[in-house]
Amino acid sequence: MAVHHETLTVETRTKVSTIDITARLRAAVTRSKVTNGICVVAVQHTTAGVFVNENADPAVQKDLLSHLGKLVPRDEEFAHAEGNADAHIKSVLTGNDVSLAIRDGELVLGRWQGVYFADFDGPRERHAIVTVIGD
Amino acid sequence: MAVHHETLTVETRTKVSTIDITARLRAAVTRSKVTNGICVVAVQHTTAGVFVNENADPAVQKDLLSHLGKLVPRDEEFAHAEGNADAHIKSVLTGNDVSLAIRDGELVLGRWQGVYFADFDGPRERHAIVTVIGD
Amino acid sequence: MAVHHETLTVETRTKVSTIDITARLRAAVTRSKVTNGICVVAVQHTTAGVFVNENADPAVQKDLLSHLGKLVPRDEEFAHAEGNADAHIKSVLTGNDVSLAIRDGELVLGRWQGVYFADFDGPRERHAIVTVIGD
Repeated sequence: MAVHHETLTVETRTKVSTIDITARLRAAVTRSKVTNGICVVAVQHTTAGVFVNENADPAVQKDLLSHLGKLVPRDEEFAHAEGNADAHIKSVLTGNDVSLAIRDGELVLGRWQGVYFADFDGPRERHAIVTVIGD
Repeated sequence: MAVHHETLTVETRTKVSTIDITARLRAAVTRSKVTNGICVVAVQHTTAGVFVNENADPAVQKDLLSHLGKLVPRDEEFAHAEGNADAHIKSVLTGNDVSLAIRDGELVLGRWQGVYFADFDGPRERHAIVTVIGD
Repeated sequence: MAVHHETLTVETRTKVSTIDITARLRAAVTRSKVTNGICVVAVQHTTAGVFVNENADPAVQKDLLSHLGKLVPRDEEFAHAEGNADAHIKSVLTGNDVSLAIRDGELVLGRWQGVYFADFDGPRERHAIVTVIGD
């Protein structure tokens, strides 16, 4: 059995954004030399998330971030005094880890699926740990 | 170590629905011959999800879908022009992968837990990949 | 390869609460003797969740629970007659499983990250299964 870790660094440029990390995950899977197994992506921050969604029309990411902003408005009254309570809540709603299958040396994703890193309190340098485990 | 993949096909019949896939996952675990390990279910679509919730009272699934419809109304104004932006957002909120323990050859679930495939933009033929990894 | 399971028991004391289980997960990882791999935490209930979020300012947990209460009000009209439909929905929104990396014998978490068990329908004795898999 092989276990392969990589740290993925993401530089975000705006307050709220999503970044397609699919190609970087595919490269990590190739480097791991794992043929069959799983890949876990775990964000190392509490105001960021990771999820799988459409990679074709950028409007989907825009709608998602806009709607999350309606569900958790930044200017609502919160007890946490740093002004980013909304980002903590969005991180829990989207989740901050994703598990995917690896088959025949490839990450298994549907035709329209991409893996997105979401920053809800940028811009910052962000990190996720990618773990590939299999044979 | 063993890694076992199966593709699960789900036929949905209405626009929005959840389908209990627990028995099919248990069968996949049995076929994998894995005694101890984990099982990852990853949906291959961006307008569908998978989650664990109550398997006793069907009203729970009804309440869940109804409430998701309130949190993300289908007729809200979205940039994505295909009319299913709400389904993409619901997929992110519920999540589209689940990881479960396998112990003594059995999927470990609580007494009232079932695993549900959720389609937010049906009816369609849908797919999920089930990966069992362990010894 | 090694697979190590532990059942984690959590006693909650109020209707809605989050409990930091990070130290207990770290201890489980140590007991597993796994050096590199992953750790999966799966809640065994349908009105509870598990997620990763800030471990520094307790106000973050307070804001999160309060905001979830706004997104899914307990007194809304639901079909499920047990009075805890909101808790089932919150469990799906937060998710009830988490996957984390284990590197050099340690759970990999960012500086401000803790793992929280969330009870949305307490007080009760609750259980989660912790699975450590790796070499």
